[in-house]
Amino acid sequence: MQEGEFILHGYFRSSAAYRVRIALNLKGLTYQGVAHHLRRGEQYAAAYRSLNPQGLVPTLEVNGLALTQSLAIIEYLEERYPEPALLPKTPESRARVRSLAQITACDIHPLNNLRVLNYLRQGLEHTEDVIQAWYAHWVVEGFDAIERFLCESPDTGLFCHGDSPTVADVCLVPQVANARNFKLDLSQFPTIQRIDAIASTLPAFRKALPSNQPDAE
Amino acid sequence: MQEGEFILHGYFRSSAAYRVRIALNLKGLTYQGVAHHLRRGEQYAAAYRSLNPQGLVPTLEVNGLALTQSLAIIEYLEERYPEPALLPKTPESRARVRSLAQITACDIHPLNNLRVLNYLRQGLEHTEDVIQAWYAHWVVEGFDAIERFLCESPDTGLFCHGDSPTVADVCLVPQVANARNFKLDLSQFPTIQRIDAIASTLPAFRKALPSNQPDAE
Repeated sequence: MQEGEFILHGYFRSSAAYRVRIALNLKGLTYQGVAHHLRRGEQYAAAYRSLNPQGLVPTLEVNGLALTQSLAIIEYLEERYPEPALLPKTPESRARVRSLAQITACDIHPLNNLRVLNYLRQGLEHTEDVIQAWYAHWVVEGFDAIERFLCESPDTGLFCHGDSPTVADVCLVPQVANARNFKLDLSQFPTIQRIDAIASTLPAFRKALPSNQPDAE
Repeated sequence: MQEGEFILHGYFRSSAAYRVRIALNLKGLTYQGVAHHLRRGEQYAAAYRSLNPQGLVPTLEVNGLALTQSLAIIEYLEERYPEPALLPKTPESRARVRSLAQITACDIHPLNNLRVLNYLRQGLEHTEDVIQAWYAHWVVEGFDAIERFLCESPDTGLFCHGDSPTVADVCLVPQVANARNFKLDLSQFPTIQRIDAIASTLPAFRKALPSNQPDAE
């Protein structure tokens, strides 16, 4: 691996890897992708675990380091490659953007990723109906809050914060895609839908789509 | 509220509020605490929801703004009040610290907070044994990874990163306290226990303990 080269370990369906793909694309950084098929458990292979003891994706290899956790990776990219900025300038506005991102990354996504749904399905033997209700419950609760935050603030623009994409959009768009996969009715979230539609017109977001990854099924 | 005054909305048992208490204390910032009794559902009162649409704690009021999401609040404090620093200097080391913090904040805590355990208990009618096993599963999985990250890195010092507390410790210590409440055996995590013991000697951590809050039961 040469200085400044990126290797992104991911999976086409992973929302967390999707966030990092968008961030790399927005910053114009090219990377080599390595797919780990989560449903086949490839993330638990010893070689991958030596990079990421959690056995989760994404991991970003750069300059001999293995960076983990999608938001930590994106903050790293922001610090090393500040332009175009994915966080606004003032501490107050940065707090708003990070908070919106964390509603998705801390309060929605962790409850609904593959390992959790597998625990409900296999460990607790719940039916698909129960799992679908669980999924919808946490997404609706989180999206309700995001929609209210977005509606009630003059800082909301074409995107979650102003008229260019930030970390908030980088987290929101993969969660919207995920919710669509689960056939969730999004009509009650018009602002989220509007922002998602605008983001989807940008090449950086389109190129990062799960369906555009080499490992897509 | 005067310029620069802080009002912290929390609950003595909330791990996320506990993180912000530690961060405020480490930075020597005084605040007025407002308790919302989560088990009685006080966080869903309309007045509180107008500050925080999620109906979660913590919320930090400062200069007329209501900041939400514990890690976003702590990053805000770090930007506005840089000393003592809770993040190291280089982007690479900051990524390591943020990643350790996010294992707790994204992959352990969200699965085990009150609203989720209530869903398992009331919504899915699981027994306390099932809930205890669920709790332990996610903490052990996360702590296994944190322990390995800590053991395998020369960057680990008296604390998770070097010899002074960072955001990683600010997240870890409340999760350890929470695990003790759930009677989890922590003997398999010697490095985590060692760091927790050292942190517990610092007044900033001690003052933030749930048992030292005015609303403690």
